[in-house]
Amino acid sequence: MYNADEQFEKLGLVLPPAPKPLGVYKPALVVDGKFLYLSGHGPVKTDGALIKGRVGSQLTEVDGKLAARQVALTMLATIKANFGSLHAVGRVIKVFGMVNCTPDYERHPYIINGCSELFAAVWGADDGVGARSAVGMGSLPDNIPVEIEAIFELR
Amino acid sequence: MYNADEQFEKLGLVLPPAPKPLGVYKPALVVDGKFLYLSGHGPVKTDGALIKGRVGSQLTEVDGKLAARQVALTMLATIKANFGSLHAVGRVIKVFGMVNCTPDYERHPYIINGCSELFAAVWGADDGVGARSAVGMGSLPDNIPVEIEAIFELR
Amino acid sequence: MYNADEQFEKLGLVLPPAPKPLGVYKPALVVDGKFLYLSGHGPVKTDGALIKGRVGSQLTEVDGKLAARQVALTMLATIKANFGSLHAVGRVIKVFGMVNCTPDYERHPYIINGCSELFAAVWGADDGVGARSAVGMGSLPDNIPVEIEAIFELR
Repeated sequence: MYNADEQFEKLGLVLPPAPKPLGVYKPALVVDGKFLYLSGHGPVKTDGALIKGRVGSQLTEVDGKLAARQVALTMLATIKANFGSLHAVGRVIKVFGMVNCTPDYERHPYIINGCSELFAAVWGADDGVGARSAVGMGSLPDNIPVEIEAIFELR
Repeated sequence: MYNADEQFEKLGLVLPPAPKPLGVYKPALVVDGKFLYLSGHGPVKTDGALIKGRVGSQLTEVDGKLAARQVALTMLATIKANFGSLHAVGRVIKVFGMVNCTPDYERHPYIINGCSELFAAVWGADDGVGARSAVGMGSLPDNIPVEIEAIFELR
Repeated sequence: MYNADEQFEKLGLVLPPAPKPLGVYKPALVVDGKFLYLSGHGPVKTDGALIKGRVGSQLTEVDGKLAARQVALTMLATIKANFGSLHAVGRVIKVFGMVNCTPDYERHPYIINGCSELFAAVWGADDGVGARSAVGMGSLPDNIPVEIEAIFELR
């Protein structure tokens, strides 16, 4: 049977520290005992600092995709901090991927794939892939390149 | 009894091809056997090409409203491809309508009505109308004028 | 026991009129008899007019935070108009806070706290605080500085 914690080990991933709220909100909230709502997460690095910069001017789109992957790792850190295991999540329901980019930027799905590909690697090509939007924002907190919120179904 | 498929026939609507995912996501996902989450959809034309352009510069707001209507048709195509029938949907829960427009644009609800009016025509003035936000983005994938994601309740 | 209506009285808050829909949508929708989806709300003043302006150019961030608080009051007005009581809401599940600001603005969480702090004051520091994203839009309807949509759990 597919186990997200074992998969995580195999991939040799390193989690950043789980982020503290930057305002009056909860990073994670369970609804009905079976749905996990994760607040908008930014790309926290292993040292706790944020990746910053706008895609298309300060950052390349490759940087942006790596930032989206780092957002995914930050979300994993929040899940692990709350449940002790990534296996607590049964599947991804929905990802809302927000890119801080120049107004002429057109490849948001490429960038948000940095998150989605990691979720697929951890929870599998079916359970790790949910509904999604990938869109361009006017700005994001602390000038982070990517912010992502998500809903998961718990096991 | 109101039937969305009959209503669709009466309206003489033509569906575009159901879009393939542009990234690592599912266009449609069912939760708890009764809620349908649709990923962000763009305006796919009958020939499979996307309507492109920014409202307020490359496109007029009338173009934008027609694009939102085309997004709604694209969502209907996804529903039909997944369930074989529009009658599978009982009602609209929530529409998140995102407009790619110039920063001074102020009539996002007018544009997203292009989608909402079609949903109301297909599923009725009560069941076809849900909660909604209509907002302006910094940019959208492929420079499409409108992207919409939605949640429906299945019958 | 904590009662949101009593808390509301103690705080001496004044509600604006509950907003009518600006398009084809319902301001509030109940799902499964226990979840309340509120459409995107803007900052309606006691006289029914909207607070307008972009944060970072036409408005300061203090104005923006006050606008977010006014959005929260407008959401309370919608809840009261639909249920007759704020106590109908058991807890906040999710807040999506959208700020209309200049592209270089970085303190969206500060602004959306204007809403979240009011929810916490009305429903308490635990039940009144949910998951959240606070992000910057390209534009908002009628040039309002803040639009917020939310999901609540009913009692």
